[in-house]
Order: sequence, then structure tokens, then C-alpha cells
Amino acid sequence: MKIYDLSPEISEQMAVYKNKSEKRPKIKVTRTLKEGTNESKLDIELHTGSHVDAPYHTLKFGNTIEKLSLDKFMGNSIVLDLTKVKDSIRQSNLSKLRIKKNDIVLLKTKNNPDKNFNPDFTYLHKSGAAYLASKKIKAVGIDSLGIERNDPSHETHNILLRKNIPIFEGLDLSKVKQGNYFFHGLPLKIKNGDASPVRAVLVR
Amino acid sequence: MKIYDLSPEISEQMAVYKNKSEKRPKIKVTRTLKEGTNESKLDIELHTGSHVDAPYHTLKFGNTIEKLSLDKFMGNSIVLDLTKVKDSIRQSNLSKLRIKKNDIVLLKTKNNPDKNFNPDFTYLHKSGAAYLASKKIKAVGIDSLGIERNDPSHETHNILLRKNIPIFEGLDLSKVKQGNYFFHGLPLKIKNGDASPVRAVLVR
Repeated sequence: MKIYDLSPEISEQMAVYKNKSEKRPKIKVTRTLKEGTNESKLDIELHTGSHVDAPYHTLKFGNTIEKLSLDKFMGNSIVLDLTKVKDSIRQSNLSKLRIKKNDIVLLKTKNNPDKNFNPDFTYLHKSGAAYLASKKIKAVGIDSLGIERNDPSHETHNILLRKNIPIFEGLDLSKVKQGNYFFHGLPLKIKNGDASPVRAVLVR
Repeated sequence: MKIYDLSPEISEQMAVYKNKSEKRPKIKVTRTLKEGTNESKLDIELHTGSHVDAPYHTLKFGNTIEKLSLDKFMGNSIVLDLTKVKDSIRQSNLSKLRIKKNDIVLLKTKNNPDKNFNPDFTYLHKSGAAYLASKKIKAVGIDSLGIERNDPSHETHNILLRKNIPIFEGLDLSKVKQGNYFFHGLPLKIKNGDASPVRAVLVR
């Protein structure tokens, strides 16, 4: 069993969306061995690092993260090599690829979530989102900290989330090649969560 | 594929170890749909709810959570029904059970991490820990919020963690029966983490 780790390290120095300081996690030591055991706390924005968005993130009546069926977060997965796409992934970039019903589709682009935030990251155009929704995929993931770029109407998110297709953002896909794998990226069971940080892996 | 969810919900009302208020998570809404999207933050003690302890929790030179091989957190698992054990699980409770090398061993007791904290929870005695370590298991889990009870020397933890055997605590095993499953409980990749909250599941 070969395991590919898709999650960047969570630290106070990690890359965050639009470099917003409020999105940077805080890790605080609360106890040390001298007092008995080493213990600490993590204060984290749910959309920091590798994470998964629930429908409630952009939809008023959308499901929250703890309400979604767990089988949406694990299963057969296909990594698509879209590293040559310059701006946005459109239907025309996807329509010739072998995407099957219930696939967890991972969009490997020229992005890398572990580097400094790049405001010109490659994103999923609404035409690409509509195509993936029409294929009845289980979930989608991308290697940028957002799946859309500066769209105040959040069309890419809405098209997917209206179909209860969870969106993984901030995955590091730089070390995996196009092909089929088994994916795991279970969310924490956060009450009323609009998202959750995840440890995501591919297994072969 | 049947998935059994082993993680209690994370909320401000959840049961926490010794009912310590500082161990209770805080969930704070940071943005709402009116401002664009629903977003929130989670401030959580790493040992709250279902979580996994790294060697550094009790050992000065122990590995931190992000340093452990990911294969320790997923694999073949055996649930052992120890619901008749009253106080602590000793070698004598385990020695007749079919525990194999590299198993992820889950100790199902009369505890339930989702109910109010019970200070008299069933725990793993150091003789049980030494037996499990001698069987070269991959990881161990229990349905109490601690695997030992009021032992200032942390012998049960130390015996396991010295062998780099991660310890899952706070698992809800009330809905699974004794038997073999596949387990997943990947930690967040927290820099220098002494533990991590997890979403743990059994799959059959």
C-alpha cells in the first residue's frame, strides 16, 4: 500500500488565502511535561490549508459538514493533469477525459498550496463545474486555496454545492501523476460546520 | 461499503476530559452569507473528542504527530468486546484474544465518550499496554477520553508511545461489534503536534 500525502503542514507560517492574517492558524502550548504532559490548542479557520467545503459555505439552506454522508469523502478517485491550463479549467479542458459517475475528481494544476499565495491561481470555471456536476461525480478537489477566483456570485461553488458535491481546496497534488487512486479526506464532525480542515491522502 | 462513524460531534456542549472547561472547543462564526460566504473558526484542545496522541504527548524526545508514518493511522483493525471488564483492561483480559502483528486494536468497553464524562471510566492497565506492545500492534484505540486514569507516571501511555504506537482516545465504539474491519483515523498535519483531533471510521 503506497500512501500519497496531499496535505500541507498546518503552522503559523503556512500559506493562506489572499495572505489574510486572520486565516493564519494559532498553535498554543497549554501544558508541558513539567506539569504532566505536553498539550496544545489549535485555533484554525475552517478554510485554512487542505480543507473541504460543505454546501452551507455558499448556500443559505445548504447542508453543514457533519450532515453529509461519509462516503462522499472517500472512494475511487481520478487525478487529472491540467498543469498546462493557464487561467481557468473549462468544459473544453475536461470533456475528453475519462470521468466516471461517483469519481472523486482531483484537478492537478500549476498551483501549489504550500507555496506563497498566488492571486492568479488556476481555478475551475463555471462551465467546468457544470460539466463535472453533470457527470454526477462524488466530490472534487483542487490544488489552490480556492476553487474560484474573485467571483462575488460564487457560481462555481454554487453549481457543485447545490448537488451536494463537496469541494476540497488546498490539496498538494504536486507529487501525484494523472491516474486512478483511492482517496480519503474525512472532515472533522464539526457541528454546523461550513467546512473542515482535513488530512487528505491517495492510496494505491 | 459500510462505514461506521466513530467520532462524536465537535460542539461547545460536548463531553470533555474531567469536565475541564478549558478543554471545551469554541466555534466562532467569522463571516456570513451577507458578507459573501459562511465561514467560521474552530479553537480546539488537541486532546478533545476523538483524537490521537503522538509520542511527544508524554515523552520528551517523542515524535510529534506530523512525523509519524501515515500508515500507522489506517489499516486492518480488530474491535475487542471488553464491555464486561469493570475497572481496567489487564494482560489477562487480552491474552486469549486473536491479536495480530500490525493490527489497529480497538478496545470496546462500557464507556461512551459521547455521554457526560465518567471519572470511573474503564482504562488500559500497564500490563495490558505491555502485552499489546509485545504483539507489535500498529495502533490502539479506546472509547474513553483517556486510556489511563490518574496515573501521574503515565505508564500506559509511555509503554505504547515508546514503541511509536499511536493512541486513539474518545472513539465511540458503541455501535460496532467485536470483529475485523478496516480503520481510518488520519491526524491533521499539525507542526510539532502532541496529538490531533481525528474523524475515525471503520469500514467493512
